Amino acid sequence: MLTYNFDDPQKPLYEQLYMYIKKDIEHGILLPDEHLPSKRSFAKNLGVSTITVENAYDQLMSEGYMYSVAKKGYYVADIKDKNKIVKAVRINSDIKLPEQAKDYLYDLSGNQINPDNFPFSVWARLMRETISSDKGALMTKSFCAGIKPIREAIAAHLYSFRGMAVDPAQILIGAGTEYLYGILLLLLGKDKLYCVENPGYKKIYQIYEKNGARCTFADMDESGITVEGLKSVKADVAHISPTHHFPTGITMPISRRYEILVWANEKKERYIIEDDYDSEFRLNGKPIPSLQSIDASGKVIYVNTFSKSLSPTIRISYMVLPVELANKYYKELSFYSCTVSNFEQYTLAEFIGQGYFEKHINRMRLHYSRQRNMVMDILKKNRLSEKCRVIENNSGLHFILQFETKKNDEELKRLFENKSIHMQPISDYYYKSSDIQHRFILNYSNIDKETLDEAFDIINRLL
Amino acid sequence: MLTYNFDDPQKPLYEQLYMYIKKDIEHGILLPDEHLPSKRSFAKNLGVSTITVENAYDQLMSEGYMYSVAKKGYYVADIKDKNKIVKAVRINSDIKLPEQAKDYLYDLSGNQINPDNFPFSVWARLMRETISSDKGALMTKSFCAGIKPIREAIAAHLYSFRGMAVDPAQILIGAGTEYLYGILLLLLGKDKLYCVENPGYKKIYQIYEKNGARCTFADMDESGITVEGLKSVKADVAHISPTHHFPTGITMPISRRYEILVWANEKKERYIIEDDYDSEFRLNGKPIPSLQSIDASGKVIYVNTFSKSLSPTIRISYMVLPVELANKYYKELSFYSCTVSNFEQYTLAEFIGQGYFEKHINRMRLHYSRQRNMVMDILKKNRLSEKCRVIENNSGLHFILQFETKKNDEELKRLFENKSIHMQPISDYYYKSSDIQHRFILNYSNIDKETLDEAFDIINRLL
Repeated sequence: MLTYNFDDPQKPLYEQLYMYIKKDIEHGILLPDEHLPSKRSFAKNLGVSTITVENAYDQLMSEGYMYSVAKKGYYVADIKDKNKIVKAVRINSDIKLPEQAKDYLYDLSGNQINPDNFPFSVWARLMRETISSDKGALMTKSFCAGIKPIREAIAAHLYSFRGMAVDPAQILIGAGTEYLYGILLLLLGKDKLYCVENPGYKKIYQIYEKNGARCTFADMDESGITVEGLKSVKADVAHISPTHHFPTGITMPISRRYEILVWANEKKERYIIEDDYDSEFRLNGKPIPSLQSIDASGKVIYVNTFSKSLSPTIRISYMVLPVELANKYYKELSFYSCTVSNFEQYTLAEFIGQGYFEKHINRMRLHYSRQRNMVMDILKKNRLSEKCRVIENNSGLHFILQFETKKNDEELKRLFENKSIHMQPISDYYYKSSDIQHRFILNYSNIDKETLDEAFDIINRLL
Repeated sequence: MLTYNFDDPQKPLYEQLYMYIKKDIEHGILLPDEHLPSKRSFAKNLGVSTITVENAYDQLMSEGYMYSVAKKGYYVADIKDKNKIVKAVRINSDIKLPEQAKDYLYDLSGNQINPDNFPFSVWARLMRETISSDKGALMTKSFCAGIKPIREAIAAHLYSFRGMAVDPAQILIGAGTEYLYGILLLLLGKDKLYCVENPGYKKIYQIYEKNGARCTFADMDESGITVEGLKSVKADVAHISPTHHFPTGITMPISRRYEILVWANEKKERYIIEDDYDSEFRLNGKPIPSLQSIDASGKVIYVNTFSKSLSPTIRISYMVLPVELANKYYKELSFYSCTVSNFEQYTLAEFIGQGYFEKHINRMRLHYSRQRNMVMDILKKNRLSEKCRVIENNSGLHFILQFETKKNDEELKRLFENKSIHMQPISDYYYKSSDIQHRFILNYSNIDKETLDEAFDIINRLL
């Protein structure tokens, strides 16, 4: 009869027995359909209790190494294919990770949040209050579009801050705008032709393309994307950021906005995706009315995020769907679970509802406007100012520097790179080669005087 | 000259002026290309400072209501399309929300977490420690696949708990398995034929279908999905849960596992998605080795979630990609941002790393095993036991009750519904009509004695 020695005092006997038999089956020492000892006699032979053998047999049977035949006993299963596949432990496998963002001495394109600017103490307190308040609600699955309090808080914020009157039921919360674009593709259909702005933020194009949607781009003039452009490429859906376009900084004037709305109204399948990603940081005057707020025909999908206004590491974005699309979403896609955790949804709802979000925006706007003035000051005093022109658009966290130089953008980039300066030209954001040269983006959200002054000196020498 | 009365002491003068002019332009009182007063004379006329007029003009110009001509002055812009579109405030719009889950007196299918079972105090403490520790890291954008500490913690957990040796670089974190399936579709391609188990959890099929992938299903036998089934439907990708299938509770034996692996190895485009959603809650013996751990050819994509093991309201899931697919992901899809917030990623990493996750699982396993024994006890003493048979599979949070009755499942469901009993038959999980009848799913994760006893009494009378 089978005999094994139990030599590991750390492991339960049944587990040791299970391992021995399993190994013997795998190594072909016990053969398919071979009869195995009865529990009682096996236990006696091994000097263990019947329960020990029973537990080992149960485990082996549930994994399929053994089978039992009523009134006959136990047998080795026939694992036909076990020899064809041998598993080797694989660790530190040959995986090539994507390149990490480089650390630059002078990062003038940085979009990182300065940790000092995030309201840690308020956030921590609200998170603590959330966790100790309604535990039942926290453990109850979120409504597909997000919990009610956060959608109500956002609706109230949009009303007071953007003059937008929206039903909280039109608001859909998601873990980042990229996720929401994916949902939009399912709602609007991948057979539509999506049109992005040229130049523009290429990730949006990438997302449409990777998801198998048809995607194209249309040129902008000084007021943004044009109706002629949209018509010439036969676009169905225009994905635009009329409040503050990246990278050009263009704000679409009201007349162009109405033109685009009229374009959308001409055909049933046409829609506008209004990407309002940094409208909170308009530095002068009142925010410009969103397209959504002057759209009476349900043609505008408004998308915004807390990535810019709060932190890119909190993954909460939202969109406002026109009523018809909201109904379509609830009918066809509400089986999708909400992608944001309850803890953060409730915390953010309190953060907005108790007025902290508005305070934070006001504080950040002041901060950015000081940053902007500081940059202007430094530039004015620096000799670089003789070789460049600031292209102003009164908004957001960046502006454009137009350099006077004979070198082309590729050369400049190389020269900057060699001196550990990170600054991107607008030409990088064009989908086809463009004669727009020497316009470099200066993001001032998180940069200090000394770094900037030194960077300007170096750039001045390089031009 | 234009004259306005400033009658709102709450609003800045410039804003009131801006509103007046804007309204007059919108209502056609000021006509396109009409000349507007110079700043100085207008200010004098209105009895305000020049700055006030300047601010109002700037705002109107940036919104496109006005334009200026050098050395000539200010003019009303031509907003051609403004009359075609009139925006009405829309709130409480006609949106039909999806039906909410009903409240039942006797919910025997409930999958809700009892709030008492979530480790609130530990979680709150770790969250607090996270927020006050490395603020720089918290504000730094997560690596696309998730922060390193959480991937390392999961790799270590998989090694000790599941005997899986995986490189943390193979692990991809996402906001829920549904999101990860979307990423998988982009990785494997929508042209592949995805095959799910029949019966099965229909949401998975829905996700594939909505995303435009080709999708089908194959019948299971008593060991799970079959190679013949996969071959007869010409599947490329098999989406299965071999550890504990829902709803049948079947555990795929080791020989079938090898057969499925051999099937996957026969063609380059074949893959297996192993959905291991509740492997933590096997109640007897050791967990069964995952398919991933016996796969030597990089054919298995292992998917798991913290929804079952921790809480469905924390949206963190992960998958383990074979090396080849991990490389493809990093090359083609790493532009996608991680969908889980840094706060929760760091908190969960500590929760696993400090051993709380294992403790939690052990505690929950004990809890569920007590629940299971309690249910068995109640059933044994209840007269219902004479009219039903328990189908056991030693795993997870549910088993099947096979009722002896002449009524069909539709009738039973109606009768249960009338008595406010929620219990679903397996037949609901079939993709085509099946002759499997009278097998009802009893989920015992969160149910109490009295409710259960009463429910059994009522069911007994109804059968």
